[in-house]
Amino acid sequence: MEIKQAIITAAGKSQRTLPLQTLVDRDGAAKTALQILIEEIQSAGIDEICVVVAPGDEAAYRSAAGSQGGRLHFVEQPEPLGYGHAVACARDFAGARPFLLLVGDHLYVHAGAKRAAQQLVEIAAQEHCAVSAVQATHESKLPYYGAVGGRLVPNRPGLYEVLQVLEKPTPTEAEQKLIVPGLRAGHYLCFFGMHVLTAAVMGLLDEEIAAARGGPVHLTPALNRLAGRERVLACELRARRYDIGVKYGLLTAQLALALEGEDRDEVLTGLVELLARRELK
Amino acid sequence: MEIKQAIITAAGKSQRTLPLQTLVDRDGAAKTALQILIEEIQSAGIDEICVVVAPGDEAAYRSAAGSQGGRLHFVEQPEPLGYGHAVACARDFAGARPFLLLVGDHLYVHAGAKRAAQQLVEIAAQEHCAVSAVQATHESKLPYYGAVGGRLVPNRPGLYEVLQVLEKPTPTEAEQKLIVPGLRAGHYLCFFGMHVLTAAVMGLLDEEIAAARGGPVHLTPALNRLAGRERVLACELRARRYDIGVKYGLLTAQLALALEGEDRDEVLTGLVELLARRELK
Repeated sequence: MEIKQAIITAAGKSQRTLPLQTLVDRDGAAKTALQILIEEIQSAGIDEICVVVAPGDEAAYRSAAGSQGGRLHFVEQPEPLGYGHAVACARDFAGARPFLLLVGDHLYVHAGAKRAAQQLVEIAAQEHCAVSAVQATHESKLPYYGAVGGRLVPNRPGLYEVLQVLEKPTPTEAEQKLIVPGLRAGHYLCFFGMHVLTAAVMGLLDEEIAAARGGPVHLTPALNRLAGRERVLACELRARRYDIGVKYGLLTAQLALALEGEDRDEVLTGLVELLARRELK
Repeated sequence: MEIKQAIITAAGKSQRTLPLQTLVDRDGAAKTALQILIEEIQSAGIDEICVVVAPGDEAAYRSAAGSQGGRLHFVEQPEPLGYGHAVACARDFAGARPFLLLVGDHLYVHAGAKRAAQQLVEIAAQEHCAVSAVQATHESKLPYYGAVGGRLVPNRPGLYEVLQVLEKPTPTEAEQKLIVPGLRAGHYLCFFGMHVLTAAVMGLLDEEIAAARGGPVHLTPALNRLAGRERVLACELRARRYDIGVKYGLLTAQLALALEGEDRDEVLTGLVELLARRELK
């Protein structure tokens, strides 16, 4: 399976300005969050990128993408009808081909040589099926994520066959339906903000949209149905996600990038100076 | 002397997007850098604010100012002809009255009860003259700042009468012209990014602009001439400036705000977790 296209969703009301924020990347260069995401996608050998934006945001995003701005495709989500609806807005862009899906308000910091998107796309290409990146997450954080239940693929540590997908499950629901053997107690496989999906999901989303009659449409019910029809895997990557939309999310993402990057020593020194200066004041 | 108006310059090519960046302020609320600056100004009892922007930036700035956006005045700097030229673009706004001047790419963190702008405006009001905020700065950083030479006002620690102003002096120039008794060796009084100026500076800037014949115009030569004509003071404030335009400037400013703010414990905990997680990976 070849994955040659990617969709970034960035139309959420509280998330619209996040991809436009500026950070210093691991290589020491100042970039917008959008530019960092584009490089993440390109690391996986993908050059066709569609960004789903709120009406009127295209120009700001083109500008924030810098030299890549002219190459991006844009689709507007006319109304804020949820993440699943936003993904479906890119159905014509996706066509019949599989695609990498990323949220516009997360940044990723990888361990090892390969970026998160590259790791994920390589697994999907090998396994010829949809794969959702997941991260073992404590149950106290279930209210923030979609989560999957499933079973380990034999002899493939970190790779799971998905049996069930639930949006923001309660701890009771999670305990009943999402226990995954091999995880630490009280931990569940929560979404990482990055999936490779097959074109079938677009049809399922269109059905969800019709059934919602103008109400919000999540991605998780469509993923749950997708896992009932075709093989869907979940995998833990050698990477961490940083949600830049939460309070101090930009700060945390910037520090995580800096601590793994070329300027680690400079930033640690600055940090100690800042703490010391405060105490000496 | 009453100071009832403020000018923010934000037209510099590399600085245009900085006031639009989002940070968490000391009170724990997410704000754009522009909103934090506006609150800084309002703390000094000033409600009339003019922002000097590059052509086409007004709409983005109005939006970044949030609920204050409708009250701002805007002036465009048609061409990037330097900081002095940008200030002069607001001459009609300023009229014959004194004004508080701030750069759009610095944030301020104050110690004690009063914000930096409030401290500065109170001194100018008491002394009935122009006052530049300054910070004792090591000579290695002279290439980044305007600097002043002068003498201590008797019995007023931290307050200086300005005799000379130089833009980015060399260490030799600084040693010859800007030694200020009472500072640590190798330290000079460098600008803080915040001044209260009298209307006379606008006339001096217009003369500088005419003499420059289309070339760039700095603020410092006009300030130097102002100090030759009328009393100009410099004062050290109980505050620190954070230039968000330098590499990791946003990170440092965000940390400085957080360490002085309501979320100090939360942020320190997050910092330690981030450092520990990296080592355990």
